[in-house]
Amino acid sequence: MSFAVFETETARINDILCAVNLLTWDSRTMMPAGGVEARGQQIATLVGLARDMATGDGLQRAIETARAELRGAPSDDLRLIAVEQAAASIAKLSRIPAKLVAASTTLKTQAQAAWVKARAANDFAGFAPVLERTMEMQREIVGALGYEEHPYDALVDTYEPGMRWSKLQALYGQLQQSLIPLLAQAKEARVRSEILDRSYPVETQRQFSSMMATRLGYDFGRGRLDDAVHPFEISFTRSDVRITGRFRETWLPGGLFAVWHEAGHGLYEQGISEQFSRSTFTTDFVNLYAVGGASFGMHESQSRLLENRVGRSRRFWDLHFHELKAVFPEQLSDVSVDDFWRVINAARPSLIRVEADELTYDFHIMLRSEIEAGLIVGDMRVADLPEIWRDKVKSYLGLDVPTDTLGVLQDVHWSSGMVGSFPTYTVGNIMSSQLFSTARKDAAVEKGLESGDYMPLKSWLQHNVHQHGRSKSPGDILMAATGADLSADAYIADLSAKVAELTA
Amino acid sequence: MSFAVFETETARINDILCAVNLLTWDSRTMMPAGGVEARGQQIATLVGLARDMATGDGLQRAIETARAELRGAPSDDLRLIAVEQAAASIAKLSRIPAKLVAASTTLKTQAQAAWVKARAANDFAGFAPVLERTMEMQREIVGALGYEEHPYDALVDTYEPGMRWSKLQALYGQLQQSLIPLLAQAKEARVRSEILDRSYPVETQRQFSSMMATRLGYDFGRGRLDDAVHPFEISFTRSDVRITGRFRETWLPGGLFAVWHEAGHGLYEQGISEQFSRSTFTTDFVNLYAVGGASFGMHESQSRLLENRVGRSRRFWDLHFHELKAVFPEQLSDVSVDDFWRVINAARPSLIRVEADELTYDFHIMLRSEIEAGLIVGDMRVADLPEIWRDKVKSYLGLDVPTDTLGVLQDVHWSSGMVGSFPTYTVGNIMSSQLFSTARKDAAVEKGLESGDYMPLKSWLQHNVHQHGRSKSPGDILMAATGADLSADAYIADLSAKVAELTA
Repeated sequence: MSFAVFETETARINDILCAVNLLTWDSRTMMPAGGVEARGQQIATLVGLARDMATGDGLQRAIETARAELRGAPSDDLRLIAVEQAAASIAKLSRIPAKLVAASTTLKTQAQAAWVKARAANDFAGFAPVLERTMEMQREIVGALGYEEHPYDALVDTYEPGMRWSKLQALYGQLQQSLIPLLAQAKEARVRSEILDRSYPVETQRQFSSMMATRLGYDFGRGRLDDAVHPFEISFTRSDVRITGRFRETWLPGGLFAVWHEAGHGLYEQGISEQFSRSTFTTDFVNLYAVGGASFGMHESQSRLLENRVGRSRRFWDLHFHELKAVFPEQLSDVSVDDFWRVINAARPSLIRVEADELTYDFHIMLRSEIEAGLIVGDMRVADLPEIWRDKVKSYLGLDVPTDTLGVLQDVHWSSGMVGSFPTYTVGNIMSSQLFSTARKDAAVEKGLESGDYMPLKSWLQHNVHQHGRSKSPGDILMAATGADLSADAYIADLSAKVAELTA
Repeated sequence: MSFAVFETETARINDILCAVNLLTWDSRTMMPAGGVEARGQQIATLVGLARDMATGDGLQRAIETARAELRGAPSDDLRLIAVEQAAASIAKLSRIPAKLVAASTTLKTQAQAAWVKARAANDFAGFAPVLERTMEMQREIVGALGYEEHPYDALVDTYEPGMRWSKLQALYGQLQQSLIPLLAQAKEARVRSEILDRSYPVETQRQFSSMMATRLGYDFGRGRLDDAVHPFEISFTRSDVRITGRFRETWLPGGLFAVWHEAGHGLYEQGISEQFSRSTFTTDFVNLYAVGGASFGMHESQSRLLENRVGRSRRFWDLHFHELKAVFPEQLSDVSVDDFWRVINAARPSLIRVEADELTYDFHIMLRSEIEAGLIVGDMRVADLPEIWRDKVKSYLGLDVPTDTLGVLQDVHWSSGMVGSFPTYTVGNIMSSQLFSTARKDAAVEKGLESGDYMPLKSWLQHNVHQHGRSKSPGDILMAATGADLSADAYIADLSAKVAELTA
């Protein structure tokens, strides 16, 4: 009876957060321009209500009563796990003083405005003061949350529970050692890059990528695909999980891989067990979210797996290139499957993270993580960032950074108060290979991949990853699924094999 | 300071209700089929929260404090009006015992399922028991709300503040006397009905009706048009007011007039003063709504005015038929403006309310109102409804009702617990003529209508109706705008003139 009270209260908070997600989805896909201000107020009201309910006495009492009822239950009892996870989320939320929450919300608004202006004007000095205050506030949040090894851990842990800066540094070191020579080798590959610049009508891109998303397992009966400036996935319980894409006539990969990336996120949310779908919420320092995955990194692993491990694989295109050619017969008349596979896997160091290919993407992440850790611990100063950025881009990617707009000012994250989330992109890349290489040891999965039947892969992922929602930690999921802790070996093996084939 | 507290609290309730409206809009336009159940839970949670906030001690204290602060303010002080309106909505909501609210919500779910089944199977007996319980519950609600003259008044007043059954009966009597001979006369008109059945591509219908909606004053910068099975308008403050249409290739009027009807509703919501837009809510017995208009009837008057008084007028098509012909050149090659005007105004008695033309629509409303009043006061029994229905349709429309599916089972309203709302359709029709005939006395409005410039009409409506939101009663708005109480004279004059021209 008392666990039921806890469950009902949590479900109500989840309902509100799902409504916030719908308000957000709508604001990015459907809302007329005039609606911006009122929508901001609506979201603020609902987020505030959810926060009040999550940190209120009612839920606290429900937690205590449920704990009492579950005393003696085994530690893997799902009810106990739910209660303890909610308690931990709330404790984290409650640890940040209300004054700091308010200051952080206010600063975010100022910082975003300053960032937009500074980026447009290539004026880092104009952004520096507010960035300095943002980092100070992040240090205050670190102080409130506490940490064991390194202050940056407190922030990273929010997005990737259990992750440590020391562990990241080890992974980064291993990646650098392998990727730098691979990248040098990959630059030698012959690539017909003009293939992708041809004109591919948007509606056909949409149809083809949707059809393949369905075959990869995304359920349009519990989802839909719309246009957005920055593609994203968002859900309102497992029964309604929406994805977005960005289609441009002269950029085919945007229309294909962005959709399969988001479909990978969507598969995760659609595959969470019914029992977790309406009764879970997670939190950063100031906000609550209705998100069902174990961590940002685990979520990204699912999107990268579909996008890169499957969608950019040679086998995938050996099977499906003739289907793409059937819908773009003129554009691809002089293109072989080998030409196509090469061009969608070509490695070219570039200045902008969101345009980076698989071989260079992690360098963008590494340099950002190192800067975040340096700023939080106090080894680096905001004023020095442009120079630090230029040095790191030169050393990792061999490129000169002509302007701060194309450098330190390119990302929205810091102005949104998101510090500590960048590492989860690389964690996700690594996990995608670790999980995929294990999945392929399953005979049915491998046979399916050979023949273009992706349902065995979907089942494997659902069984090993998706269904658990947030009831297991990313580390436990990895261990149970692959028998090992997070390791970059499989990822490096995948990239090495790709470069070998690119340059064969 | 204390009025500010009231204002903030009301705005927060309004925010939640706007979120409910978005959840509703989405469920009817965008939501994948799988989302139904979770969406129902989300809406129930938010409505419950809004209800708790509206009937809670916090708002009650804010009302008392604001009243104290505003003691001595003139009765037309907008702050005082806002406080008293909120107090009245809450008092109404609080008068219904929580037990009755819960029972009513549960019954609604059962009743809708039973109705869908009964309608499909033409099985009135299968629906009768749950309809009996619905009417019992409505009588309980009447008892809780109280009334002065007739029990039906308590229900009607919810949708049309100040309206009485005695007043409606007088209006209905006048309408019957005028419309029965008009309808007999109108049947003689020569009409080329096959014109409308031709194939009009949906996208062109959408473009033409959207373009005209813009010229009629609907602002797409604060709105959008989507598809829905049953067209509707819904808003999330005045800055985001959306409309929907239903387009079928072989039913051109559906594509045009439904859009202009909803655009009329939209103009109302978009025209409400900024100061009322985020601080108002209204309520039926169990739900709250973020709706800004003075009443259901006043809202319907604005949709009918655009749809019928303007959109079906001879002058409108004299001005714009060549534009329609330009986009449908083949379909309309042998059609004159006279042919077209006749066919969109033709009167043909039919069994289904939502397909009825302007001359027969009110008969559908009258018979439903008479049945509702009879059931509530106890003069009629649910078991007798099929026969009563057949008798009334025969006497008003001269038609035989072949099945209950095409008769008493056709509307969703009763199974949704909406009793007392039907009269507002006829009230809206009447008001549309009363307001339009007055507006036309304004030289600028009349000149605009002559030349196809609808901005003076929009300004007149905004000044006299829209801007006030719910700060004035429908009766006060009518009196201030037209100098008279609600009267059917102008409506009957409009319909008489139309029939005269149809049969000239």
